[in-house]
Amino acid sequence: MTTVEKPQYRVIGTRPIRPDGVEKVTGKALYGADIRLPGMIYGKILRSPHAHARILRIDTSEAERAPGVLAVVTHADLPVAADRVEELGESAVNVREVAENILASQKVLYRGHAVAAVAATSPHLAEEALELIRVEYEVLPPVLDVLDAMRDDAPLLDENRRTKTLMTGELSEKPSNVASYNRFQDGDVEAAFAEADVVVEREFRTKMVHQGYIEPQNSTANWNADGTLTIWTSTQGAFAVRNLVAEVLRKPIAQVKVVPMEIGGGFGGKIPIYLDPIAALLSKKSGRPVKIVMSRTEVFEATGPTSGTVIRVKAAAKGDRLTAVQASLFYEAGAFPGSSVGAGSMTMLAPYNVENFVIDAYDVVVNKPKTAAYRAPGAPAAAFAIESVIDELARHQKVDPLVFRKVNSARKGTKMVNGIAFPRIGHEECVEAALNSDHYRSPIEGPYRGRGVASGYWFNGGMQSSVVVAVNTDGTVNLIEGSTDIGGTRASLAMQLAETLGIPYESIRPSVVDTDSIGHNDVTGGSRTTFATGMAVYEAGMAIRREMVARAAKLWGLAEEDVEYDAGIIRSKKDGRQFTFKELAAQSARTGGPITGKASLVARGVGGAYGTHIVDVEVDPETGKVTILRYTAVQDVGTAIHPSYVEGQIQGGVVQGIGWALNEEYVFDEQGRMLNASFLDYRMPTALDVPMIDTILVEVPNPGHPYGVRGVGEVPIVPPLAAIANAIYDATGYRFTELPMSPRRIVEALNGLSG
Amino acid sequence: MTTVEKPQYRVIGTRPIRPDGVEKVTGKALYGADIRLPGMIYGKILRSPHAHARILRIDTSEAERAPGVLAVVTHADLPVAADRVEELGESAVNVREVAENILASQKVLYRGHAVAAVAATSPHLAEEALELIRVEYEVLPPVLDVLDAMRDDAPLLDENRRTKTLMTGELSEKPSNVASYNRFQDGDVEAAFAEADVVVEREFRTKMVHQGYIEPQNSTANWNADGTLTIWTSTQGAFAVRNLVAEVLRKPIAQVKVVPMEIGGGFGGKIPIYLDPIAALLSKKSGRPVKIVMSRTEVFEATGPTSGTVIRVKAAAKGDRLTAVQASLFYEAGAFPGSSVGAGSMTMLAPYNVENFVIDAYDVVVNKPKTAAYRAPGAPAAAFAIESVIDELARHQKVDPLVFRKVNSARKGTKMVNGIAFPRIGHEECVEAALNSDHYRSPIEGPYRGRGVASGYWFNGGMQSSVVVAVNTDGTVNLIEGSTDIGGTRASLAMQLAETLGIPYESIRPSVVDTDSIGHNDVTGGSRTTFATGMAVYEAGMAIRREMVARAAKLWGLAEEDVEYDAGIIRSKKDGRQFTFKELAAQSARTGGPITGKASLVARGVGGAYGTHIVDVEVDPETGKVTILRYTAVQDVGTAIHPSYVEGQIQGGVVQGIGWALNEEYVFDEQGRMLNASFLDYRMPTALDVPMIDTILVEVPNPGHPYGVRGVGEVPIVPPLAAIANAIYDATGYRFTELPMSPRRIVEALNGLSG
Repeated sequence: MTTVEKPQYRVIGTRPIRPDGVEKVTGKALYGADIRLPGMIYGKILRSPHAHARILRIDTSEAERAPGVLAVVTHADLPVAADRVEELGESAVNVREVAENILASQKVLYRGHAVAAVAATSPHLAEEALELIRVEYEVLPPVLDVLDAMRDDAPLLDENRRTKTLMTGELSEKPSNVASYNRFQDGDVEAAFAEADVVVEREFRTKMVHQGYIEPQNSTANWNADGTLTIWTSTQGAFAVRNLVAEVLRKPIAQVKVVPMEIGGGFGGKIPIYLDPIAALLSKKSGRPVKIVMSRTEVFEATGPTSGTVIRVKAAAKGDRLTAVQASLFYEAGAFPGSSVGAGSMTMLAPYNVENFVIDAYDVVVNKPKTAAYRAPGAPAAAFAIESVIDELARHQKVDPLVFRKVNSARKGTKMVNGIAFPRIGHEECVEAALNSDHYRSPIEGPYRGRGVASGYWFNGGMQSSVVVAVNTDGTVNLIEGSTDIGGTRASLAMQLAETLGIPYESIRPSVVDTDSIGHNDVTGGSRTTFATGMAVYEAGMAIRREMVARAAKLWGLAEEDVEYDAGIIRSKKDGRQFTFKELAAQSARTGGPITGKASLVARGVGGAYGTHIVDVEVDPETGKVTILRYTAVQDVGTAIHPSYVEGQIQGGVVQGIGWALNEEYVFDEQGRMLNASFLDYRMPTALDVPMIDTILVEVPNPGHPYGVRGVGEVPIVPPLAAIANAIYDATGYRFTELPMSPRRIVEALNGLSG
Repeated sequence: MTTVEKPQYRVIGTRPIRPDGVEKVTGKALYGADIRLPGMIYGKILRSPHAHARILRIDTSEAERAPGVLAVVTHADLPVAADRVEELGESAVNVREVAENILASQKVLYRGHAVAAVAATSPHLAEEALELIRVEYEVLPPVLDVLDAMRDDAPLLDENRRTKTLMTGELSEKPSNVASYNRFQDGDVEAAFAEADVVVEREFRTKMVHQGYIEPQNSTANWNADGTLTIWTSTQGAFAVRNLVAEVLRKPIAQVKVVPMEIGGGFGGKIPIYLDPIAALLSKKSGRPVKIVMSRTEVFEATGPTSGTVIRVKAAAKGDRLTAVQASLFYEAGAFPGSSVGAGSMTMLAPYNVENFVIDAYDVVVNKPKTAAYRAPGAPAAAFAIESVIDELARHQKVDPLVFRKVNSARKGTKMVNGIAFPRIGHEECVEAALNSDHYRSPIEGPYRGRGVASGYWFNGGMQSSVVVAVNTDGTVNLIEGSTDIGGTRASLAMQLAETLGIPYESIRPSVVDTDSIGHNDVTGGSRTTFATGMAVYEAGMAIRREMVARAAKLWGLAEEDVEYDAGIIRSKKDGRQFTFKELAAQSARTGGPITGKASLVARGVGGAYGTHIVDVEVDPETGKVTILRYTAVQDVGTAIHPSYVEGQIQGGVVQGIGWALNEEYVFDEQGRMLNASFLDYRMPTALDVPMIDTILVEVPNPGHPYGVRGVGEVPIVPPLAAIANAIYDATGYRFTELPMSPRRIVEALNGLSG
């Protein structure tokens, strides 16, 4: 671990056991599928067999009379206004489109698009009743590829959609599948290209891939006769579910309670809502609690994978300098606008100081499932493109690819593509650590073996968090939070509280509570929780410290400024009298009541972060199998609160990147049917496919956080696509510009059949 | 409704629907018995058949091998130190005795005392296994009567117990069943008796009675492999359960989470813990969640009824003045010390200004279940005694009994028996309202018909409360509290918050959350919740107001003092710009994050309260049946936050008082076996036994509370015992000094067979 300017911590940086660990390994932790309520019935969803069709008629009458059926719903049951754009929390959400994606009204826009739902006394009866729902469709030609969708003669998903130019707010005259267009630019790319030693121009393609979380989406809803609604669900953000459900169902927010169950993975895919309003409406109609659990096929076909992309990059080098980049990013949004092309276009050049650039970004609807966030959404595909081109430039200029990255590295003061200067960042330190690593210093030899490197960046998120801290009379502490714990944040938050209060980690019991039990918390996403909720934990901890100082001052008859709080000791500066935290906690009833603290905030001071990865591969030219021989991920983690979980995040991100690079893709036929909608056919890496991923934690503390925290969860998925492509080039001399680099494509490429 | 100096409220004093109402009437509310957990098994408890015996040996080996049995526990499994007195929250609790009452170690002290417990895969297998546990007892003579227990030759429950004189802290030399003795005195009673017109001396007896809540005690516990423990239970105080369980099981408080289920009545009887540590230990041993639900017989025999009492009163009047009272109160504590004699001795004279008094109070252990609190614990029996004697004095002096009470009424400045002066109180106003009532002004005529009156007092409680308030972006509000809602406090607290914030009651969603989700809250008892948690709600609401003023000031670029909060409007004092609560709530993400407020406090400023009751009865001399013809309860309620629930509390208290007066009693045989341990044999009043109870709410606002709240739940059970005895005297000329005044006793008395 490389440490830069790191303070001395007592708890931060240690590796205690996570509070939810034992419950999870003993099977006692409750996930959405474990919920059973008195009188509960089961919901199933009828989905479109067509990728693009007009709904002419839905007849549910026969299904309503089927055995065991207690309720049937369609879009007509959603009380949403026709065209209402509402602002919910930080982000503008088009509620009408959310509702359309939940249950289609006039058109289905992808295969798997929900059109109706049934609740019955058993899941089997519900499934049988689905077959009794008659839907008349007028089938339309689907558009499945992002470039096809941009053609003038392309079928339109929405005849009323016009392209919005984000810089000006202008709308195009003609309807289009391009939902939005944006440009970042600076300098003079044409002049730089003219002066360059070398210009590389390439087009890259990535396919739609899924987050592949283990636990399918699920939702259980109980709608009471008084209109109050409780939802138990697997989500990255219970409050987002609450607020969106309230919007979609037009209910007061306080009437909706969302109970977050444990989550079996999310990676961004468990931010949108799919089942919750349907389960709620079925419960309202039937008067029963209703549970819906997706099958894996439904997860693939009807939740939010990440965009397939086409990215064109033209880049130039002069000597060891990256002098210009021109890029066009075309991202599939799926059935409704909102791909991650914005983030792709903003992160692409973040590791570098490039004076001349033009980046164009297109958000394009196609007849595929509406995309959702997937770990550093938008960044991996963009990094695949730029980091491949940089590899070529460095090779052409005969500069070590890491040295090239170091020379051109962004650092404090470098402008981002939006013109704002970076605060203290750690890309250069990552590249330096990679250069000095045992891995990079060890040679790689042998036929069909090669090494690749790549860097990547992610913003990390701030947003809103609320926590409450309650001190018990025996000096133990309850930490009450509302952030979904995906990757160990119960531990990383409790550790920050222990550090702040100067008490043992074991004294703190963190709880992720429901939306009726704590103030608002934005989603666990954007790698924000350890950073932003951690900041709230720190603030609440400081409030506890002030309160304890006030209590001790009262007991001693001193002014508060004559009492200090030092590492769990409350001490009189006048005469050295002191209380331990535990001793003073025991006095709470006599000194003013329960000692509690709270903080609700918008976390400012987000620290963006970088990773630089090194990978060695061996390619089998016969079978096309790519074996990852060694993998080292260097990352600036700010401060590693719990190093094991930081390492785990990095390892997990790398493995997902390996899957994306080598195997994963949505395979569609020309009618827009996904041909591999199961884990048998959609090939994700298993433990047998990857070596131990080595990690090097670089700690460049984020000056915007009391403990220097940067987000760590998303950066590690950004470099692997390019790093592996660069390694395969090194091993084979073949430059792949399309993912996945699957055995078939490898064999075809090495035999000159493609490319 | 009589109103004194009452401010103009918008929400307080209205009668909205309670938030938990629909769930309860539709059967969706979850009580302890509704809990089902994966893998859950069932616990049953082996109880002593003897009222007093030494345990020589417990052999559980055969039970452990019985079919379906997964765990057996005895006292040996309780990790409690031998003799440890711990201070928990406000009150000192003898943890050893709590543990002894939960599972007996060397002696059983009452029939029904738990000695072992079994958990098995079905309740029936658990019951069968109980029969396989061999317990060898050395049976000892029981002592069942409070006066018998005080005799020198009485069998001792605990050979080490010595009488503690509370004024001095002295312990008696000889062991005794008298756990404590206390005296309050002032003036010169002997001189006053000598100067009196009349002196009445009487001995009163009341029997042990039970609270008779509908829902039996229950507890479900899940002990995880990491030592964390979750308990779902029916309790008046989840935090009290948490802290006591932690003490008894020697666990850190933060490792224990108590989830309060809805409660089917408590009345003080659901403050102690009985099942929770047993369920926890069975879960620890079996590795499964364990559920235990008491039968009604167990509830009668093994939970905490209220004390049987003997009370001797000698009182004097001169003219219309009550000049002296000498009283001795002997209360059965049951198997362990801690009857409510202290409260009895302190409340007895509270309605009156008596210059000369001596009150002696004895807390006496007997071989009956350990008593618990029961609605105004200790006060009804004491009021039965004094109010009967006052009736005699007034009659003798030919002063109307209400006028007598008015003349002698305590008021602001009158000293309590402990020497502290009353703040503003409302007894005089109650008597006045009773005098002016339609009921009292209407004559009662006819043979065997009579009218009685009586007054009563209860302190009401303060203690600790914590609440959190979270404002949602649509202007609705979540109120997060930890006080068990027994009598409608979700409503009464939400109303106080609505009043404070100036928003509609319907915008507020109150939730009673578990102990991991809010700061400490003392039990819902002592009529404290609407008062004390209401005070916390007010404080948290004021914090929200300050926060919203700060947000608006920031948005307008004004100083905070230039912005005012007025009835849900946040207004610039400078230029009249304004936000509604809802408008500003929508801005929260842009102005600093979620708007939340919290308060944790020890509620000071408790307001004691009085009731004065009028009852008309008809006695059937043939059958002994007493018919309540008309009943009017006048009560100073401070401020009636929700008048319907105040009236409901008064009506409920009166009905319990009627049952206590006329029918209820524990009937024991000489071996200490309860002969009527079922609702078939233990006769409680039904809806058919009582008329509509009329209420007159007198509102003398409590100056110690922002909305003038006094507790209302306990006062109404205090006067009925004496009021009915006085009415029966009026109807029959027979002065009953022993409860219940059951048909048998009435017939015997009127036929000269007793008395």
